[in-house]
Amino acid sequence: MCALQVLLVAGTHGNEENASWLFDQLEKKLWGLNKKNIDVFSVIGNPEAREANLRYIDRDLNRCFHSDLLSDIENQDFEVTRARYLLDIFGPSGKIPCQIIFDFHSTTSYMGNSLVVYGRRPSDLALAGLIQHQLGLPIYLHEGDLSQQGFMVTSWPCGLVIEIGATPQGLLVSKTIIQTKLALEACLDQLSFVRDNIANIPRNIIIHRHIKSIDFPRDENGNRIAFIHPEREGKDWVKINKGDPLFMNSSGETYIYSENTSYIPVFINEASYFEKNIAMSFTKREILPFSNKWLQSLSQLIDK
Amino acid sequence: MCALQVLLVAGTHGNEENASWLFDQLEKKLWGLNKKNIDVFSVIGNPEAREANLRYIDRDLNRCFHSDLLSDIENQDFEVTRARYLLDIFGPSGKIPCQIIFDFHSTTSYMGNSLVVYGRRPSDLALAGLIQHQLGLPIYLHEGDLSQQGFMVTSWPCGLVIEIGATPQGLLVSKTIIQTKLALEACLDQLSFVRDNIANIPRNIIIHRHIKSIDFPRDENGNRIAFIHPEREGKDWVKINKGDPLFMNSSGETYIYSENTSYIPVFINEASYFEKNIAMSFTKREILPFSNKWLQSLSQLIDK
Repeated sequence: MCALQVLLVAGTHGNEENASWLFDQLEKKLWGLNKKNIDVFSVIGNPEAREANLRYIDRDLNRCFHSDLLSDIENQDFEVTRARYLLDIFGPSGKIPCQIIFDFHSTTSYMGNSLVVYGRRPSDLALAGLIQHQLGLPIYLHEGDLSQQGFMVTSWPCGLVIEIGATPQGLLVSKTIIQTKLALEACLDQLSFVRDNIANIPRNIIIHRHIKSIDFPRDENGNRIAFIHPEREGKDWVKINKGDPLFMNSSGETYIYSENTSYIPVFINEASYFEKNIAMSFTKREILPFSNKWLQSLSQLIDK
Repeated sequence: MCALQVLLVAGTHGNEENASWLFDQLEKKLWGLNKKNIDVFSVIGNPEAREANLRYIDRDLNRCFHSDLLSDIENQDFEVTRARYLLDIFGPSGKIPCQIIFDFHSTTSYMGNSLVVYGRRPSDLALAGLIQHQLGLPIYLHEGDLSQQGFMVTSWPCGLVIEIGATPQGLLVSKTIIQTKLALEACLDQLSFVRDNIANIPRNIIIHRHIKSIDFPRDENGNRIAFIHPEREGKDWVKINKGDPLFMNSSGETYIYSENTSYIPVFINEASYFEKNIAMSFTKREILPFSNKWLQSLSQLIDK
């Protein structure tokens, strides 16, 4: 049985500094991250953007892992080239083939810590469910959004994003560093538990399924004319119902939420999403029975 | 009697978005900011850096107002050129000569809102004292720091920086916008009260006098090896004594504060100060009797 090779990524967004800094320290100290038959590799996703304290140089690296972009040899954008390089080295068919990837991010939204899963690959759901069962983290299931594609972890057979927040960009914050480290340890623990057949299997997993994103109110020139209402700010994961305050303008006037359907907002006021015209995303909470097939799929990857 | 001309500046640092956004809205709505015999002008300090969501393009605009730099015609750095332009238009001898300037900033430090005064110009102390008396804001008196000079407001006869925090960079936050607006109104109110001889004069002003700044612990290559200790984080304005926790490294080890002198830290973990090698600044709290000469100095400017 060969060792499972796991890739840990920090700094996919250059201005999300806490995980990158932690990875620097890990390299020096090797906190015994390698588990029995699990070899751990780590890389800074976008070191040039990190050096510049920017999310990216040419375009969002975490939207570049899309076959159309990767195969378009005319496209030599910095991050597209970097995506090809990462796949060449650590991709499932790369020089150091990794089967599972964990991509560590931070958010300015008051979401606490959460897991992000893209689509419904069985091994992703298994892994997210196990980590949720250990740490109690909410899972944001991103699917069906044609405007947001090409996420890094989707280029590996199995992978999750770990979001830690709220934390400002470009700043080291003790809580964020400590929680990134705890999440990282839980991710690797669960892999070794599955390998040793001692995983503590939950009955269900709770997901927050992405439905849609909404933008800020804007004037005829596209300028934002309102901000997140003080009564909604910091209330990620809290359901919004018709009539609830949503935005406020500079005169103190409230924009209420007027749809008939209630949703659970996430990524409220994420700094990097302004340019994507996203004030927040709406989700629906769902409970999925934990499937034995998910676990089999994950076990096959681990035992490969 | 000619009208006093007051300059309001936002976005001197391009990634401190809240005041800039508020100024955009003000321009549209003209909330009656002009007071009797006080004409208010406003400008975005560094619109190009704002567009790029960066603190600056070439160098910190708020360190460019230094006679050596301004008079060095060889220096065509973007922000030096911008500083000359702002003085040419709004400087005390400019096309629209302003006598008093308020420069609105935000900080990622948990300082709440505060006033920054550079040196001990009598009119600055009078104005800061009056605003402190109205709003209860702490005053950070910056002096005697040869490594930090060339602040914008020092190029006008009288001027203050208003810092609003904590707020992340590049983000609109309701509390920050609302408090910026309140501070702005208080600044203009106090000027009109002085003009009308109805100012409510405090007996004393409380200042926090800058003593020195300290850096993060670093390794031999200059890399940070520790972050602000969780027990110190968010404790701006709270005295630090010998033996108190100061930093923590990634192994959870604490660095204690070992000096014999107690200080009051401010600007703890300000994101933009990493590049200046400042983890926090130390101050001493002092009480100064409010001098009638200060008020005379301010009145002379206002009645000019």
